[in-house]
Amino acid sequence: MAVYTEIDDDALIAFMGAYDLGEVLSCKGIAEGIENSNFLVTTTQGPFILTLYEKRVNIEDLPFFLGLMDHLAAHGVPCPVPIRTKAGETLRELSDRPAALISFLPGMWPKRPNVQHCRHVGEALALFHTAGENFQIKRENALGVSAWRATLDAGVQDVDNIKAGLFKKLTAHLDRLERSWPSDLPTGVIHADLFPDNVFFRQEHLSGVIDFYFACNDIYAYDIGICLNAWCFEPDLSFNATKARRLLQGYQSVRPLEDKEIQALPVLAEGAAMRFLLTRLYDWLNTPKDAFVTPKDPIEYLKKLEFHYHVKGPESYGLD
Amino acid sequence: MAVYTEIDDDALIAFMGAYDLGEVLSCKGIAEGIENSNFLVTTTQGPFILTLYEKRVNIEDLPFFLGLMDHLAAHGVPCPVPIRTKAGETLRELSDRPAALISFLPGMWPKRPNVQHCRHVGEALALFHTAGENFQIKRENALGVSAWRATLDAGVQDVDNIKAGLFKKLTAHLDRLERSWPSDLPTGVIHADLFPDNVFFRQEHLSGVIDFYFACNDIYAYDIGICLNAWCFEPDLSFNATKARRLLQGYQSVRPLEDKEIQALPVLAEGAAMRFLLTRLYDWLNTPKDAFVTPKDPIEYLKKLEFHYHVKGPESYGLD
Repeated sequence: MAVYTEIDDDALIAFMGAYDLGEVLSCKGIAEGIENSNFLVTTTQGPFILTLYEKRVNIEDLPFFLGLMDHLAAHGVPCPVPIRTKAGETLRELSDRPAALISFLPGMWPKRPNVQHCRHVGEALALFHTAGENFQIKRENALGVSAWRATLDAGVQDVDNIKAGLFKKLTAHLDRLERSWPSDLPTGVIHADLFPDNVFFRQEHLSGVIDFYFACNDIYAYDIGICLNAWCFEPDLSFNATKARRLLQGYQSVRPLEDKEIQALPVLAEGAAMRFLLTRLYDWLNTPKDAFVTPKDPIEYLKKLEFHYHVKGPESYGLD
Repeated sequence: MAVYTEIDDDALIAFMGAYDLGEVLSCKGIAEGIENSNFLVTTTQGPFILTLYEKRVNIEDLPFFLGLMDHLAAHGVPCPVPIRTKAGETLRELSDRPAALISFLPGMWPKRPNVQHCRHVGEALALFHTAGENFQIKRENALGVSAWRATLDAGVQDVDNIKAGLFKKLTAHLDRLERSWPSDLPTGVIHADLFPDNVFFRQEHLSGVIDFYFACNDIYAYDIGICLNAWCFEPDLSFNATKARRLLQGYQSVRPLEDKEIQALPVLAEGAAMRFLLTRLYDWLNTPKDAFVTPKDPIEYLKKLEFHYHVKGPESYGLD
């Protein structure tokens, strides 16, 4: 849940006057995204999303994010696009923050994803990867494998308060992940955060992929690892191999995987679990005890990591 | 800011199926209202507000609130109305909570109200009062003058930590307010919370009055006192008599005040300041120090109370 910044109504009307979108009818802060303030702005031409970029987003990355939306939408990915002012601008300023007006995508994210959702997510992820191939701007993955050690070590004093022996255990996992991390796999623009709340459906039909603010250049199959963690575990943390199989089938129907990508899936999925485990640990240790927002339990991702550590091979993901 | 409850997408689609409103296109939690969870639901027929009533609202009061919206809208007040299902229901259940779907009102609330806004608010408040005259259900004011003593006394241990001598000062003000509180003024249904964030405008034109969840039966002119506090002080807490004059002119253009109502305005406005001072004190003392939500400063309302205490008479509100 977000909405950190209030917008003055006069300032909003002036801001919206730069677009060719008619009269502003309403503006509601919405509980979507955790890094930025988002508003649903309705004009006589329909609804739009207004995003104010808060401190956690680096302003230098905004041309990458906004340009990527335009590029992917032009190459068939169902995703929002930045709206241009009459002068052609997309990145602007409102309430002393960088701001962009983005098109509104109909659809709802699935609270209880089923196998059909997983199939469509696989297709959309592969489409995202292939559509991004010619995108010219690059962005390094600030939360990739080379960043994990520093995040873990920053918690050395506190991690064991969450679970006895956790720091030592995670250090051993990380040592092994760093040693075995693949360096010869196809790379390109990945979404890097394709959780259910970032994928909209109308009935069973995927209507949109949103929230590109972790997108970056990294290993394509690592993005599959993120999705296996995000979509294929049940609420009791049991792994649903049918969902994984459908997700991978959906992916390969658009972009067939090379054999070395398939063989690397367990270590990539384990690394993906490590990445979310570490940021959840960080949030857990740095959120005040009485805070209104409850941080997500990091131990969930330890269990997912250990699942991938123990799989026999990629066949555990339902592959033939 | 609210949104306490998550809604399952399948449950929402089933819920919306009881109305004749087409396909659900989206559902976004919105930062509006502080007592309930509110969602902007878009269907192929347009936008609607979905409200889930959280614990702070008494379910027995819901027929009053929903019936009042219907009654006032039918009598010309620009306000939202509960949408009926195909079976004619308005009060339903979703996510284990009482729930209602409400029409969407275009407009934005004024962050910096001007004299023209104040004029229109006065008109709308008077229209609210006259339109409510024949409404059959009654609701006692749970936050009226008879409730203030208990709220103040509950804070006896802590109030002086906010400001030295505050408990004694407030007790003296309350003693006097109770003694001088009028009992012979016209009463009826009042809004009781007509702050700027509950009044929508399109350009300078008032497009709607929302949030009826404090509405109750009480003295009409007390509602004017609430508005004088909410609309006529500048950010530096100076009183803008021109705004008060325009608000009262607007009110009287629809419902002329009796002389005894005019004479009672200072004590009623002082009581209105006491009511918001006390609930802010309560929230201030009962919100955890590290909480995400910052409670509003109660001292603002002490200063407003003291302004009304020191006025010479109703002429200080710009009346001729």
